Amino acid sequence: MLKAGVIGLGYWGPNLLRNLYANKRNGELIMCDSDPDRLEKMKLRYPDVSYTSDYRDMLNDSSLDAVVIATNVSSHFPLAKEALLAGKHVFVEKPFAASIEQAEELVDLGKKNSLVTMVGHTFMFSPPVIKAKEIIDSGELGKIHFITSSRVNLGLHQKDVSVIWDLAPHDFSMLFYWLDEEPSSVSAFGHAYVLDKIPDVAFINLAFPSGAIGNVQVSWLSPSKLRRTVIVGSRKMLVYDDTEPIEKIKVYDKGVEVIEPESFGEYQLSYRTGDILSPKLPAGEPLAAEMEEFLSCIETGNTPRSSGAEGLAVVRALELADASLMKTG
Amino acid sequence: MLKAGVIGLGYWGPNLLRNLYANKRNGELIMCDSDPDRLEKMKLRYPDVSYTSDYRDMLNDSSLDAVVIATNVSSHFPLAKEALLAGKHVFVEKPFAASIEQAEELVDLGKKNSLVTMVGHTFMFSPPVIKAKEIIDSGELGKIHFITSSRVNLGLHQKDVSVIWDLAPHDFSMLFYWLDEEPSSVSAFGHAYVLDKIPDVAFINLAFPSGAIGNVQVSWLSPSKLRRTVIVGSRKMLVYDDTEPIEKIKVYDKGVEVIEPESFGEYQLSYRTGDILSPKLPAGEPLAAEMEEFLSCIETGNTPRSSGAEGLAVVRALELADASLMKTG
Amino acid sequence: MLKAGVIGLGYWGPNLLRNLYANKRNGELIMCDSDPDRLEKMKLRYPDVSYTSDYRDMLNDSSLDAVVIATNVSSHFPLAKEALLAGKHVFVEKPFAASIEQAEELVDLGKKNSLVTMVGHTFMFSPPVIKAKEIIDSGELGKIHFITSSRVNLGLHQKDVSVIWDLAPHDFSMLFYWLDEEPSSVSAFGHAYVLDKIPDVAFINLAFPSGAIGNVQVSWLSPSKLRRTVIVGSRKMLVYDDTEPIEKIKVYDKGVEVIEPESFGEYQLSYRTGDILSPKLPAGEPLAAEMEEFLSCIETGNTPRSSGAEGLAVVRALELADASLMKTG
Amino acid sequence: MLKAGVIGLGYWGPNLLRNLYANKRNGELIMCDSDPDRLEKMKLRYPDVSYTSDYRDMLNDSSLDAVVIATNVSSHFPLAKEALLAGKHVFVEKPFAASIEQAEELVDLGKKNSLVTMVGHTFMFSPPVIKAKEIIDSGELGKIHFITSSRVNLGLHQKDVSVIWDLAPHDFSMLFYWLDEEPSSVSAFGHAYVLDKIPDVAFINLAFPSGAIGNVQVSWLSPSKLRRTVIVGSRKMLVYDDTEPIEKIKVYDKGVEVIEPESFGEYQLSYRTGDILSPKLPAGEPLAAEMEEFLSCIETGNTPRSSGAEGLAVVRALELADASLMKTG
Repeated sequence: MLKAGVIGLGYWGPNLLRNLYANKRNGELIMCDSDPDRLEKMKLRYPDVSYTSDYRDMLNDSSLDAVVIATNVSSHFPLAKEALLAGKHVFVEKPFAASIEQAEELVDLGKKNSLVTMVGHTFMFSPPVIKAKEIIDSGELGKIHFITSSRVNLGLHQKDVSVIWDLAPHDFSMLFYWLDEEPSSVSAFGHAYVLDKIPDVAFINLAFPSGAIGNVQVSWLSPSKLRRTVIVGSRKMLVYDDTEPIEKIKVYDKGVEVIEPESFGEYQLSYRTGDILSPKLPAGEPLAAEMEEFLSCIETGNTPRSSGAEGLAVVRALELADASLMKTG
Repeated sequence: MLKAGVIGLGYWGPNLLRNLYANKRNGELIMCDSDPDRLEKMKLRYPDVSYTSDYRDMLNDSSLDAVVIATNVSSHFPLAKEALLAGKHVFVEKPFAASIEQAEELVDLGKKNSLVTMVGHTFMFSPPVIKAKEIIDSGELGKIHFITSSRVNLGLHQKDVSVIWDLAPHDFSMLFYWLDEEPSSVSAFGHAYVLDKIPDVAFINLAFPSGAIGNVQVSWLSPSKLRRTVIVGSRKMLVYDDTEPIEKIKVYDKGVEVIEPESFGEYQLSYRTGDILSPKLPAGEPLAAEMEEFLSCIETGNTPRSSGAEGLAVVRALELADASLMKTG
Repeated sequence: MLKAGVIGLGYWGPNLLRNLYANKRNGELIMCDSDPDRLEKMKLRYPDVSYTSDYRDMLNDSSLDAVVIATNVSSHFPLAKEALLAGKHVFVEKPFAASIEQAEELVDLGKKNSLVTMVGHTFMFSPPVIKAKEIIDSGELGKIHFITSSRVNLGLHQKDVSVIWDLAPHDFSMLFYWLDEEPSSVSAFGHAYVLDKIPDVAFINLAFPSGAIGNVQVSWLSPSKLRRTVIVGSRKMLVYDDTEPIEKIKVYDKGVEVIEPESFGEYQLSYRTGDILSPKLPAGEPLAAEMEEFLSCIETGNTPRSSGAEGLAVVRALELADASLMKTG
Repeated sequence: MLKAGVIGLGYWGPNLLRNLYANKRNGELIMCDSDPDRLEKMKLRYPDVSYTSDYRDMLNDSSLDAVVIATNVSSHFPLAKEALLAGKHVFVEKPFAASIEQAEELVDLGKKNSLVTMVGHTFMFSPPVIKAKEIIDSGELGKIHFITSSRVNLGLHQKDVSVIWDLAPHDFSMLFYWLDEEPSSVSAFGHAYVLDKIPDVAFINLAFPSGAIGNVQVSWLSPSKLRRTVIVGSRKMLVYDDTEPIEKIKVYDKGVEVIEPESFGEYQLSYRTGDILSPKLPAGEPLAAEMEEFLSCIETGNTPRSSGAEGLAVVRALELADASLMKTG
């Protein structure tokens, strides 16, 4: 049985805690937050979980195997580094770190000390994203030509990072996972409307070694959430819309369109050409699968699907996109 | 009563002919195509319309007021120029011309000779686009922050022009119409998958003097048509989906979202914040309105909604986008 | 080459005329309406079609093969009977006749004189309905258990017939076509809200010899059109929504649902179990196929898909439903 | 502070327990199930909740204020009666009882002893149903003409009750709540496909004193859940689709439709006439609101929204529908 600790009980930490609590590989659990109110709230909900307000207590506990870090971005690196140096396996919420250098150092430390490093790219554990991966890998779509992804909603403006660091990790992690490669070039275009120098809308272009290209739109300014990812291959197209309740994934077959429209009305009607299939998706909470991946990789020594290396790849693209954005903005 | 002539009876010309035929401002009509088969087909359908296989016959007809040009792009300029020099009002299918220089010369010729020049930006006459314009102008959306537009489908690869020249005129004309301004910068990113040096997918970034920015995705590679234009303002968002049969336009009100989700499931459920309104759209074929605009402007001397100047603005953006694409591709 | 005549140029007749005009089996065409305005309008559109204001002129024309009747319901029977007696093949708009007796007499007359009788059940020629028929006949859905069909919209209240006679012919003709059988029992429940004694909403129950049952909802009172037909078989379900632009037909595979929901949210999320397929539908205007069926059956002597017998079956069910409705209302 | 006890920890009981646990009006809690496995499972999750395997222990506890009954239908009556006789306020899962007589006796007992009786008509506490009620009561829809409701899914066939007793309580409770009246007549039509004499599909007609009528479709045979409730009033229509993630409720304004369609395509396009509004819905779990209603009514002496009387009204309609179904089936 493993013993894991959660640092940070703010917005996301309680969700990770809940899933660790329910996971059977996990024996004991300890939670930590320097804010006494948050700690108090969690103590009421989990009276049998031990706690501390100082993460160093946790790291000093020699019986502790793993640390899950759900604090703000700026503290990801120092906490993860200290945990790795203390010999703990480390899971860090996304983004993995605040810079390429930090991410590289964490990955290196993990390797050197044979410790698992993992990043919370939750979408890599969500059923529609996994199903899309299976379909891509099966060759059903043919060679992947391009992927577009839109992720806009009404977001809380962050004081210190652009919308790219907040939202693009989701899309980047999906794209890299699906294509099994990192981009060879990344550029971005955007604007800061609400807060000075904090871009709140960005359009990001990516080119991949395989020849595939991508376009990612992220924004905090949209009153309603829109999510749509389109994967166009040489044979078929896959559309993944996370706001759809039932048909989150649709695969569009190609066909031949020969109608010469006689009127504008007909022009608008001739939309599609082949069958459309919406495959059954398995049920299951992504966070449960994510925690299970972390704990099982600790036990088996396997590399997690969203390993530190994936975290680094995403941070690399984020840094490139953000730098490009700052130039154009 | 006016007398108009149509040059080019291939793909789109018959639709323009049909609407001119039905328009009551139009008295006589003459049609022209150098291909005898096409001409024959139209003679059967319109036995009372005169015809010629040589457009010069048409231009020499002193009783003719106006010429409608629906030929391939490369002949837009020489035909329109000759018609303007012959003193005819001119309507040219989109794109207005094959280069900025050509477009400028046509606009100038029209002005100098007090002749109407108009371009076939049909979407500027379609009910949802006009409704969106009304909503924007009313101030309901607040200050426009950004517009994204996706126009992908299975397209016929053209031998000589990129997907930008084929599909982006639609989006550019809508954006410039809505924002009432031309972009201050245009850049594009894309790839040529099927034919060498003919990009078949492109992502275009636009910046406008007002501060608004745009992202336009166009492609011929998608097995099924996707159309979605999102206009995000400081107060509300408008989504225009031309593949929707009923609710083509939706206006999303802003709200306040305060829920701290407890699980990934809830996280995904908390999608929207305010009311959503899908306004009633008037019926009416855009092409009929377009031909009516052309003929009425000839009679009144007014400037058409999609005047030659609008045609020029779009050609300018197309040329910039295409040049940028060629650099990055 | 056949010679056909159209009687009635009001609401629907011009559409039939247009498709007869375009059909190549048809040589000459004659049109007829006692209203001079309607006739004038059509003469302008079809200057090469002969015309008369008296249908008897048409029936006396010995070179005429067939008559298409698109007048109001009450004149269907006398006109069709006179045409059959004059030796003409007859197509009658739906409903075939105003009573069972009338419909039976027309079918008998056709048989006796070896003339084609056909009814304008247009949906039997529309691509989604035909695709549903193919899927049912293939056995993919298993044994058909029940069919529900909703057809509500804002309708013009008719002075002399209930909403059942106006709208239910569409649903009845589809159901009988799909199931290949007539109902063994029909009953209806409804109400007359706007005009006294003219029911404008009705719910109709049908039982079929095969064991299948049906529920049809029709109304003129709904501000927006809703169309949804659900076919539930022992193996799969087919949903046909005619207001959908692209995915008019969806086939839902069965699966096993084992999740015990923990919260009301999850309860609402566990919606589906298997793959969903939206098959490609061929293009094509139903009316063109309908006129082609009529003319080709005249030439070949085959029985049309929507023969007089089908017209009779639908009239039988309409009369039963209406009688039942009058009792309960 | 109140003390409540939950009897029955099978499918639904744990959800009620969870919401009682979270409710602040509730001080102590006791849970009960005769199945030791279920009890054990809940003890692990709620170590601080007392428990018993014999509900009589619970009823004998003089400090207990209220009992929540989530057992199978046949035991609703005896348990609720015993609890009322023991002086406890009683909440019973839907359906309230297995017969009209039972339901009447429970309502009477509650009244006589001044105890709250309440039934678990959860939908009466769900945001879209409440929003629909507000819209109806505001008069926005005009006079309600008819309501149709479809509730089909892949259901577990129950051994002893028809699909009507299983699914129709949801629709009946919504309809009666919205219309503020009980039906004056109820009839049903259906069939038993899978199990002998256990109808698994039913179409139910209802007439109300106000003149409104209803049609409810329920079935266990559909591979995918369909939910659609349509409320047609004299002025507007409201559509409530519980499978929609975002726009669960849409209000369709009326308009005038004057287009005479020229082709079958146009015929199909002219779908709607007025604006469509999808109002913002408040967040919130219905079960939490339901438990809050129960506990607060105990404290205030108010009558709950879904009181025993509502439970009785629904049972009355269920019994009528079922009897009618048995006759026709």
